[in-house]
Amino acid sequence: MAKYSLDTIRHSTAHLMAQAISRLWPDENPQFGVGPVIEHGFYYDVKMNHKLTESDLKEIEKLMKKIIKKEKFEVQREVMAKEEAIQFFNGQGQELKIELINSFEEGEEISCYRQGEFIDLCRGPHVENIGQLPMSFKLLNVAGAYWRGDENNEMLQRVYAASFLTKEELANHLKMLEEAKKRDHRKLGKELGLFIFDQVAPASPFFMPKGAHLYNELVEFMRRIYQKFDYKEVITPQILDSELWHTSGHYDHYKENMYFSEIDERQFAVKPMNCPCHMLMFKNHKYSYRDLPLRFADFGRLHRYEKAGAVAGLTRVRTFCQDDAHIFIDLDDIQGEIAKLMEMFFICYKHFGFTNIKVNLSTRPEDKAGDDKTWDIAEDALKQALEKSGHEFFIKEGDGAFYGPKIDVEIADALGRYFQLGTIQLDFQLPERFGLKFTAQDGNEKQPVVIHRALLGSLERFIGIYIEHTGGAFPFWLAPEQAVLIPVNNDNHLDYAREVHALFTKKGFRVRLDDRNESLGYKTRQTQKGKIPFMIVIGDREMENKSLSIRAYGEMKAEDKPLDTVVSEFEKLAEMNIPAELKK
Amino acid sequence: MAKYSLDTIRHSTAHLMAQAISRLWPDENPQFGVGPVIEHGFYYDVKMNHKLTESDLKEIEKLMKKIIKKEKFEVQREVMAKEEAIQFFNGQGQELKIELINSFEEGEEISCYRQGEFIDLCRGPHVENIGQLPMSFKLLNVAGAYWRGDENNEMLQRVYAASFLTKEELANHLKMLEEAKKRDHRKLGKELGLFIFDQVAPASPFFMPKGAHLYNELVEFMRRIYQKFDYKEVITPQILDSELWHTSGHYDHYKENMYFSEIDERQFAVKPMNCPCHMLMFKNHKYSYRDLPLRFADFGRLHRYEKAGAVAGLTRVRTFCQDDAHIFIDLDDIQGEIAKLMEMFFICYKHFGFTNIKVNLSTRPEDKAGDDKTWDIAEDALKQALEKSGHEFFIKEGDGAFYGPKIDVEIADALGRYFQLGTIQLDFQLPERFGLKFTAQDGNEKQPVVIHRALLGSLERFIGIYIEHTGGAFPFWLAPEQAVLIPVNNDNHLDYAREVHALFTKKGFRVRLDDRNESLGYKTRQTQKGKIPFMIVIGDREMENKSLSIRAYGEMKAEDKPLDTVVSEFEKLAEMNIPAELKK
Repeated sequence: MAKYSLDTIRHSTAHLMAQAISRLWPDENPQFGVGPVIEHGFYYDVKMNHKLTESDLKEIEKLMKKIIKKEKFEVQREVMAKEEAIQFFNGQGQELKIELINSFEEGEEISCYRQGEFIDLCRGPHVENIGQLPMSFKLLNVAGAYWRGDENNEMLQRVYAASFLTKEELANHLKMLEEAKKRDHRKLGKELGLFIFDQVAPASPFFMPKGAHLYNELVEFMRRIYQKFDYKEVITPQILDSELWHTSGHYDHYKENMYFSEIDERQFAVKPMNCPCHMLMFKNHKYSYRDLPLRFADFGRLHRYEKAGAVAGLTRVRTFCQDDAHIFIDLDDIQGEIAKLMEMFFICYKHFGFTNIKVNLSTRPEDKAGDDKTWDIAEDALKQALEKSGHEFFIKEGDGAFYGPKIDVEIADALGRYFQLGTIQLDFQLPERFGLKFTAQDGNEKQPVVIHRALLGSLERFIGIYIEHTGGAFPFWLAPEQAVLIPVNNDNHLDYAREVHALFTKKGFRVRLDDRNESLGYKTRQTQKGKIPFMIVIGDREMENKSLSIRAYGEMKAEDKPLDTVVSEFEKLAEMNIPAELKK
Repeated sequence: MAKYSLDTIRHSTAHLMAQAISRLWPDENPQFGVGPVIEHGFYYDVKMNHKLTESDLKEIEKLMKKIIKKEKFEVQREVMAKEEAIQFFNGQGQELKIELINSFEEGEEISCYRQGEFIDLCRGPHVENIGQLPMSFKLLNVAGAYWRGDENNEMLQRVYAASFLTKEELANHLKMLEEAKKRDHRKLGKELGLFIFDQVAPASPFFMPKGAHLYNELVEFMRRIYQKFDYKEVITPQILDSELWHTSGHYDHYKENMYFSEIDERQFAVKPMNCPCHMLMFKNHKYSYRDLPLRFADFGRLHRYEKAGAVAGLTRVRTFCQDDAHIFIDLDDIQGEIAKLMEMFFICYKHFGFTNIKVNLSTRPEDKAGDDKTWDIAEDALKQALEKSGHEFFIKEGDGAFYGPKIDVEIADALGRYFQLGTIQLDFQLPERFGLKFTAQDGNEKQPVVIHRALLGSLERFIGIYIEHTGGAFPFWLAPEQAVLIPVNNDNHLDYAREVHALFTKKGFRVRLDDRNESLGYKTRQTQKGKIPFMIVIGDREMENKSLSIRAYGEMKAEDKPLDTVVSEFEKLAEMNIPAELKK
């Protein structure tokens, strides 16, 4: 099997799927769009009237496996001229393929791959024989997808499949998908009462009290980090004259994602980013080298238009808040600051249990502002800083922002899925556009460099990722409800439960007393479902001994502990709202 | 003097001012608009080419006093028919007066008052003789004012005057004005580095780090009160489909003050209020009588359009955040909730040093939603609740919101000026419009009542008022910088000062070490100017004794105290971030 790369295997399996679909619905004349390899497998876009169902997917899979086992077609490469290819696929009724062929250069060689009765336009490479394909694939689901990603085009059926080299890898992946489904933040967000959505505000979450608690605690958490690393929080307007966005360059590079409003015959835009506000604040005061690095942090609400088809849960929204900051710094001090930033990032991520951290350095993109010389300086500064900081990093060519190179930091969640959270972007453009200056030690005016940076990224998106990472079982310091108190029966134990509840509340713990007239079993099941860190049951024995029967979430049984012990254990857990590194 | 009311005195003094202006600039033919009595005095709008200067005001005042002393005109009331009055004022070249007369009903009696050569259109009453007027008035300043308040009309010169019964009252008022000028929050905001404004965002403050600190501390302060009174904070979107504003009634009643934006061919509005979001959240879940009163608090950013001429500093802005909440409640429980609210209000205001508190009950306005019967019920509920709560209150007829009656709470600041801060508004309309229901104890569905309420009102405006109330000398718990540490000289005392600074910082105090190479005198003057609660100087003696030379802001001299004593005093002061009533 090692003869072929996983990509080749996946690609050939995609062809095999198309072949099976063609054979199962010959009267539908299924037309195929694109069928690329993706992370964990592949998909293929199909145009046909029949709507594919879950049981259809099983049929297709069965036929694919039969072809591998019994028919073992050889896969043959054939080359055609462009005109020839168009004629051929026209004969096959594959109009989408013809559209693809039309985008080839005149005179370009067009390769196709044939296996049995099926032939597909393809660059290859492929396995030599379909019989060589492993059975370790599974068709997952069908989703709608616009032809060529354009919502003005027709909607095709996109069939997703998982595909791996071994059955074990496939099984692991399917298990992960199963777990991911259980942890889906949209599902848990509803079940745990964290947030809702409403069609009057598309892609804009309404945080219910428990969700707002998470959100506010994250802000407080970042503020504690900011205090240690000498950031100064500011609060800036949200609606600003388009003139500002022309100055910043956002109008030219970003206006499709911005909301505009006419006020007093002037055009204003709702801010998609905080940066230009911070530039104005820097410009408003005369700063000297003694004030630098100056770090403005801002939890301002941002609005960015995303197409209706692109938004999803909390992870892709139209309104969000970043743990955003801009650092005004002397170019000479960049390396030290990047080292500090990396320290800050690692402290933060590790505190949330993200230990698998990947650092990428993205270089100049095609659509960029500024000249290549400035880009050279910026990219070199980041590279050298990263090398000195000692963290392994990967180069992503051409993936920088239009205004400068950047460092992206990705974390792997509990299911091993990578998400980009943090970003550090160097910017030589904004200080130039806003004419920013500081007084250098020699008395001369010098232009500062600006670093844009965020650790959690968008709080909304982070909450979504973190819900899935924890499965909704939040650590004690962060949990909206830290414990639930349940009297065994209200007649005998409610008074003592109230005393205990008052004590916990006075100590500042978020403990709920469940005094409803429901059965003990019902109440404990509900507490478990709510993923509350601790469940405390109070009955005769507890009243007598001034003790508590306490069970941590995820543990199979309760422990008996003196009330005082529980209080001091809670106090220790609550102190984990500050990373140990910050207490030094 | 007691023969006439203060209003009559002021009104006659206004006529006297107009007479003096007419006599001083006869060739300008000054035309007069309206000249009403206002708090502390009166103004008169004048149309003339000559721009009145400060020295002109002195001239006018001098002539007014001469007329009182020497000319002692009798004031005679004359009545004319409408047509006759128009002819008369036409002859006087008083076109603005003719406009005013034109708005009188046909056949209405038109009264004028004559004093010597001057005659003015007026309803009266007036003093019998100008010689009876007290000299206790002062012309203050001239401001531009559109004729009839309409910006499409011409700009007149509005002459403001203070006017009182006695010279002592006038002197007190002028002293207050002088003090108010010193405390102007726009001036102090700049001097203390709290906030800036920029023309790209009219009437939208940029809070610099120290201002943002005040803002965030106020939010935290309100959260502590919320915790005690069982409020649940939520976070809601800012841009919502106009459909929602039609449902809420804001589109019909408030759209002139709203910002709109087109997105995906739908009309969206930036929220001017949080209420409709909270209605949606209530509707999204099935609540029962056990969940009520349900109190949703929201520090969401709001945007309300105000005309460029109406905005001023932080006190009238286009974007702000309220300490806003909506209480969903059973009509039967209203009185108890209002009592709780009054308790909360008084705790809050007293903590900021506002002890003079005025409560007003505003009843149905002319432009109102809903029928009179519903208004009767709502007004009665508030009245009875206030009566039971035992606070004195005043009725303001017709001053309610369009959706329900309200209680307004005003406070007097340190200069005796009253500002409305708090509001409690009963609303029978929104629950009806959104079709809100809860399950009552008998199992039936019942419509909740909504209470809108805010204590500080807008945080921006409160900060403006509070800056002027304190003159920028904030209490220790709230001050952006709580103390400044100054080594007598950097060569000898800086190391020990650094130790002390590290200790304070570790304890969580906001202490700045002023280690600049400037003279001791310069540094102490700057600390005084910054109105920092404590200035700590460290020299030889302090190093030797492990003590501090500490001077509180406003005190004339420093005290020597052991370091430990200062730390424990600071700890006590910092604990004043929670009102004593909440600690019970």
